[in-house]
Amino acid sequence: MTHNYNQEALELHKQFHGKIGLQTKVPMNDRDDLSRAYTPGVAEVCKEIAKDPTNAREYTLKRNTVAIISDGSAILGLGNLGALAAIPVMEGKAAILKSFANVDAFPICLDTQDTEEIIKAVKQIAPVFGAVNLEDIAAPRCFEIEERLRRELSIPVMHDDQWGTATVVLGGLINALKVTGRGDGKDVKIVVNGVGSAGVAVSRLLLAYGFKNMLFCDSKGIIHEGRADDLNKEKVELITASALKGFEGALTDAVKDADVFVGVSKAGALTIDMAKSMNKDAIVFALANPIPEIIPEVAKEAGVAVIATGRSDFPNQLNNSLIFPGLFKGMLDNNVKQFEIGMFTKAALALAGHVKNPTRDAILPTMFDKELVEVIAKSVV
Amino acid sequence: MTHNYNQEALELHKQFHGKIGLQTKVPMNDRDDLSRAYTPGVAEVCKEIAKDPTNAREYTLKRNTVAIISDGSAILGLGNLGALAAIPVMEGKAAILKSFANVDAFPICLDTQDTEEIIKAVKQIAPVFGAVNLEDIAAPRCFEIEERLRRELSIPVMHDDQWGTATVVLGGLINALKVTGRGDGKDVKIVVNGVGSAGVAVSRLLLAYGFKNMLFCDSKGIIHEGRADDLNKEKVELITASALKGFEGALTDAVKDADVFVGVSKAGALTIDMAKSMNKDAIVFALANPIPEIIPEVAKEAGVAVIATGRSDFPNQLNNSLIFPGLFKGMLDNNVKQFEIGMFTKAALALAGHVKNPTRDAILPTMFDKELVEVIAKSVV
Repeated sequence: MTHNYNQEALELHKQFHGKIGLQTKVPMNDRDDLSRAYTPGVAEVCKEIAKDPTNAREYTLKRNTVAIISDGSAILGLGNLGALAAIPVMEGKAAILKSFANVDAFPICLDTQDTEEIIKAVKQIAPVFGAVNLEDIAAPRCFEIEERLRRELSIPVMHDDQWGTATVVLGGLINALKVTGRGDGKDVKIVVNGVGSAGVAVSRLLLAYGFKNMLFCDSKGIIHEGRADDLNKEKVELITASALKGFEGALTDAVKDADVFVGVSKAGALTIDMAKSMNKDAIVFALANPIPEIIPEVAKEAGVAVIATGRSDFPNQLNNSLIFPGLFKGMLDNNVKQFEIGMFTKAALALAGHVKNPTRDAILPTMFDKELVEVIAKSVV
Repeated sequence: MTHNYNQEALELHKQFHGKIGLQTKVPMNDRDDLSRAYTPGVAEVCKEIAKDPTNAREYTLKRNTVAIISDGSAILGLGNLGALAAIPVMEGKAAILKSFANVDAFPICLDTQDTEEIIKAVKQIAPVFGAVNLEDIAAPRCFEIEERLRRELSIPVMHDDQWGTATVVLGGLINALKVTGRGDGKDVKIVVNGVGSAGVAVSRLLLAYGFKNMLFCDSKGIIHEGRADDLNKEKVELITASALKGFEGALTDAVKDADVFVGVSKAGALTIDMAKSMNKDAIVFALANPIPEIIPEVAKEAGVAVIATGRSDFPNQLNNSLIFPGLFKGMLDNNVKQFEIGMFTKAALALAGHVKNPTRDAILPTMFDKELVEVIAKSVV
């Protein structure tokens, strides 16, 4: 049966008025119940927290609750649609966190797109939350917001578009290199197309893992020192860290003889001719949503060995949902103070290692793998 | 069996780590489910909302979700314990809204006690919510915050410590006047002790309903024109509106020959001698929490006809929980744009009218009355 997911999604959302609701975890049936859950008993709980703020973790929802924060400036591939239009995506993430990891999450869609105001608002509402998931916030403001909040808040903060994507790409790449006979492949040539929030984090994580021969392309082509006036500090950081120096030109030039293409850019960016110009048994991660940089059938025709996309209707879905439920569960359950880049490397290794026998059409587990959340959660400890 | 609610409350909160969690309202079991609830289908929902913001009410949790906002500055009767210590109370209100009215509510405890910052933060996080319940915010800042948010936000805003209390007091008073043979009693002499958030709203609502002979006492005694330099604008407004002019002195002087005493002040404020000095068949609402202005047994001994408190272990509990679940349900279900004082009068009349045969020991229904939420919800339309 063919689905019209657009229409079915509208019907589903209308029928239930969204996807998440609250539930009470304690009995609320009679006066005794209320005397424990509310007045007079609750006063004692408030006093214990006032005495020692760390008690909030024991006595309240804080321990298991994530704020999903968006300013609506980069919703999926749709662009800047604002706070209200962001709600369905944030509810979706909350529903995934609850269904897959039993983590409670609540969407907060902010009616501001100013960096300082976003930082301030998140800090002000932080007391009730145990962690912060930043979501669909445009680059480059997303970098400063995440960096500042990690420094200025005492709970873990992660921009999932950056690190969820980066972790799943690294995990997928580790197994793709294996199934194409490249071993750990630290010397392969990698091209990242798209240097926004996801592209920068993917590149940072791959460099941190030990890949050195990397080129990065934005809408103007290969980024290089000659374009210094034109580059933000994240882009400068990347080209400084890569061992491939002196390359200029278009994406077409970059992908020649490349072993790996990671696209976090836009529909159709990688043509069949570009794919053909890559090295033998090339690896292509075409993650643009909903239409990838190259259609899997076309990539295969061009001789690509491993093709992965963000979509569920092709093999090899690289989806943040493989990562973020387990990551947040691990952080919350173990009271880990802050995310660090080393955790994403560990999570990627755990993700890749969880597949006993990866093949070219199944480099990673699916998010319905029952053990996955625990595997990722344990990796952060 | 005697309960130690303090100890039992601590154990309950520790066992469940708070009282509320999230739940998913839609199936999340396979790829098809996720394609409707999340990508790719969700994009269509976002676009519909971007096209017409009123669609957020149809397609998201906004329609049924209340923000419970506190700055932790006036938690129960405990004072200014800060944002973290406020969480258990806010979770309690959320649990009541869910259990009694099937309204979803999420606690937001703000890490600021600055009026302008609170207003700004609430406006910034408003998109995902259908209404705002302000809670445990100290006077006088609570007045400006509520007033400004009502003007500047497009969703209903209510400070429950003000209007929940005021509504339940008016409802209780209507029936107390009836059972003491005073009819509608618009000419009775009423003393309100405590002119903070609850006291001001109680007084405003009683005046708006038509009571005229009112005196108001704060910690320095009766408020009057002679203390003009000492009074905030809310207090000036009250003495201007009352028909009782030229009275000065202490609470002892105010309550002589009074028919009604409403205490929203502190433990033991009304002595047995003061109660004896009131009119025959006096009505005393002693709402200080957890220890009332006068113990019911003592009030009875002094000849008081109707004594009500905020506690569940005495007869005549006057509790905001009789009101706020139904009020929010009514506002959300009927898409009512903003709270107005006339709604609280209607809700109070509905509350009083719901008791077929009020008696001196049962002037109001209990919050476990199965019809109550609907009765209150309907009153706002």
